[in-house]
Amino acid sequence: VSSAATQPPRGTRLPGPPTSRRAATLRAREAPGDGRRTATPVRVALLGLGTVGSAVARLATRVSLDGRDIHLTGALVRDNARAREAAGVPVTTDVDAIVAARPDIAIEALGGAEPARTIVLECLRRGVHVVTANKSLIAAHGDELRAVARASGAALRDEATVIAGVPFLATLARRPLACEVTSVTGILNGTTHFLLSAIERGETFAGALAEARRLGLAESDPSSDVDGIDASEKLAILVRLLGRLRLSPASVARRSIADVTPHDLQHAAILGGTLKPVAHAAWSGPTVHAFVGPAFVPASHPLASISGVTNGIVLTSASGPLFYGGPGAGPEITARTLLDDVAEVARGERLPWPEDGTAAEAAASPQVSWLLRISSPAPLPGGSDLADLLASHGVFVRRGSESSDPGAGESRWLLTWPVVKVRVDAALDAVRGATGCAATAFRSVEDTHAL
Amino acid sequence: VSSAATQPPRGTRLPGPPTSRRAATLRAREAPGDGRRTATPVRVALLGLGTVGSAVARLATRVSLDGRDIHLTGALVRDNARAREAAGVPVTTDVDAIVAARPDIAIEALGGAEPARTIVLECLRRGVHVVTANKSLIAAHGDELRAVARASGAALRDEATVIAGVPFLATLARRPLACEVTSVTGILNGTTHFLLSAIERGETFAGALAEARRLGLAESDPSSDVDGIDASEKLAILVRLLGRLRLSPASVARRSIADVTPHDLQHAAILGGTLKPVAHAAWSGPTVHAFVGPAFVPASHPLASISGVTNGIVLTSASGPLFYGGPGAGPEITARTLLDDVAEVARGERLPWPEDGTAAEAAASPQVSWLLRISSPAPLPGGSDLADLLASHGVFVRRGSESSDPGAGESRWLLTWPVVKVRVDAALDAVRGATGCAATAFRSVEDTHAL
Repeated sequence: VSSAATQPPRGTRLPGPPTSRRAATLRAREAPGDGRRTATPVRVALLGLGTVGSAVARLATRVSLDGRDIHLTGALVRDNARAREAAGVPVTTDVDAIVAARPDIAIEALGGAEPARTIVLECLRRGVHVVTANKSLIAAHGDELRAVARASGAALRDEATVIAGVPFLATLARRPLACEVTSVTGILNGTTHFLLSAIERGETFAGALAEARRLGLAESDPSSDVDGIDASEKLAILVRLLGRLRLSPASVARRSIADVTPHDLQHAAILGGTLKPVAHAAWSGPTVHAFVGPAFVPASHPLASISGVTNGIVLTSASGPLFYGGPGAGPEITARTLLDDVAEVARGERLPWPEDGTAAEAAASPQVSWLLRISSPAPLPGGSDLADLLASHGVFVRRGSESSDPGAGESRWLLTWPVVKVRVDAALDAVRGATGCAATAFRSVEDTHAL
Repeated sequence: VSSAATQPPRGTRLPGPPTSRRAATLRAREAPGDGRRTATPVRVALLGLGTVGSAVARLATRVSLDGRDIHLTGALVRDNARAREAAGVPVTTDVDAIVAARPDIAIEALGGAEPARTIVLECLRRGVHVVTANKSLIAAHGDELRAVARASGAALRDEATVIAGVPFLATLARRPLACEVTSVTGILNGTTHFLLSAIERGETFAGALAEARRLGLAESDPSSDVDGIDASEKLAILVRLLGRLRLSPASVARRSIADVTPHDLQHAAILGGTLKPVAHAAWSGPTVHAFVGPAFVPASHPLASISGVTNGIVLTSASGPLFYGGPGAGPEITARTLLDDVAEVARGERLPWPEDGTAAEAAASPQVSWLLRISSPAPLPGGSDLADLLASHGVFVRRGSESSDPGAGESRWLLTWPVVKVRVDAALDAVRGATGCAATAFRSVEDTHAL
């Protein structure tokens, strides 16, 4: 553990007591009338006061948790000179001041691995429960944080890290008998889902990205979303929980969505499916096959019918597939989920700690169908010539679709029978070498017939 | 409260201590190695030893709950002369003997409102936690049982009552901020879903029912499933939890699936959707609109892509729709969910008690699209004549499809624009009167575009 944990950056001490707040409540939780509103408030510290932290601060003035008001004891910021919209919440840059104000629970919304890790460790060591929305933190340091929490008796909750608007993560942790899961296939990143949905409507990648930025759905540097880093962190959290395996996000095979075109989506539809930004992992013993990237999803698959920024996940379990879908992210829903986690912790609910994890080993690549795109400024070779060339590498075509665009050349999309990746790679190398065509492959998500 | 609650039928006393059982565990929960297996066993009584109770008894010998073995203290049966496959579990017909064996938790799998209500009340009064799969019991007597449980400090859990294989009910109860729901639309009955899926493949209703009976999916008297009684009880449980409204299952408008034909499903597909056995409720203040029956589901709706015995539910929430899907029922998955509930209770997790419910009032029928089927042994009137007649009653046709079957006459399926039920009823009366045709209408589930 870094020594920084006990030596946080010094800053302003907490000012006087917070200004009194009006204890407004949401519809259902107004004045329950059984005297519970006189219960002790839940004392909550905010670690971070960015978009999510500010949304929590606003929501906290409007709701009560099982009849208990929320008392914000302070907010940790990196630079307390900046004006903050959360008036009435004492702001500090000093972790000691945060802990000295005796919060019951700290909500971590700093983002990124450090300094979040150091600050959260400090809170947990001192017995402050932590609720977080920080997937990078949990994916990289979840086991370390849980060990410290367990030792000090603090709770650590992370429902908001994966599909923030759909409670399912803690539910699966609580219910191991009904949820013996062996694989997950999900749309875990709302930004790329929005981008592919826009591309499906005919936008170029650049145009879709500009629109996402206007709507606040994409960062100025969108690479964490577009290149699948965000989704690979969420996948690692799921594999740790459900497969009891420690999977490094960096070891997940990733493919960017940046080269997906409107034509790809049109022809995917002709071939009976669509392209979605998918995160997938399947495990057996200590081996895991994991990837993140655009994938061909058959129209009958439950993930095919969701769009926009909605997220969804299919879990293969011994009892049949489970599907969860809904809002993936956004400051408002993330704030709601964080405060739901706070309510559970304040109520005294404790999740079972996950069992020790085993280091994940790479599994052999499975046999799946692939959507191939072969294109050339010049006329393409004949369909049967291409099929023969692919077949000579063990790649057999199930059906195809093609387009000819004056000026942009010809393209053909081919859906293959199931085959391992190494054969597809070799076959596309051969196509490039023999014909001079450009060639790429999107893997498919197999149809979940049982759902 | 009936006096029967304190005067259960007398029967055989519990025999001696249970025979020792081998404490086998499932994969993930074998010998955790941190000494937890020496923890006190969880003492569990079974109320009912039918299909579900027997599945629980079998599973209980193979799993542990957070490292604690399960000790079955006894099983309550109606007639202990019958041979039972759960060897080693003391069987009795006497509720007093069940409670005298000091179980921590009773699993109720008797089914039906009585004597389950009387027996569960007796357990709760005496401080025995109860976990149940009995939707009839909770739909009719949930508030009474919760009041008694709350007074005595006992827990009452019912995750297995609605979509037994998908944990979501207690999750929604725990997380009111992320789950402010205003309507539910679900496929809540696996039997009717199986039947409609078989009819979609070309089976007649009678043939599908015979197949379901062979597979153990339908009772000898299938009316509770086919006529929607089972689904209306589940709907009442959801409306109580999510809408805080007391809805009598008997007040839910129900339509049987028995008259759905393979032709209906073929033409629903031509018109861009399918027919599913749907349960729907939407509420606003104290008013609820609720129905159960076969409904037209657009192909883009998340419920359209699930089939067989799988269940699913779409919840409209302030933050966007939520979707949950997976195995709906069956003894094995129900047993797993019951024991997951037992584990939560044994761990000391306590759900917030639901707020007091308000008696539901009937809401005005909403404007929705309808799938009309108009048929006659004789040739049908011309399409524009029919459309004019419907339009004169305010029912406007969006698109249509027709078939002519030598010997069976002609049929036409028409998908309308949204309109209230009273207009559809009047329009179909007019069609019957003016043309002598048979006419019926299936309501539609509106497309959830946001998901």
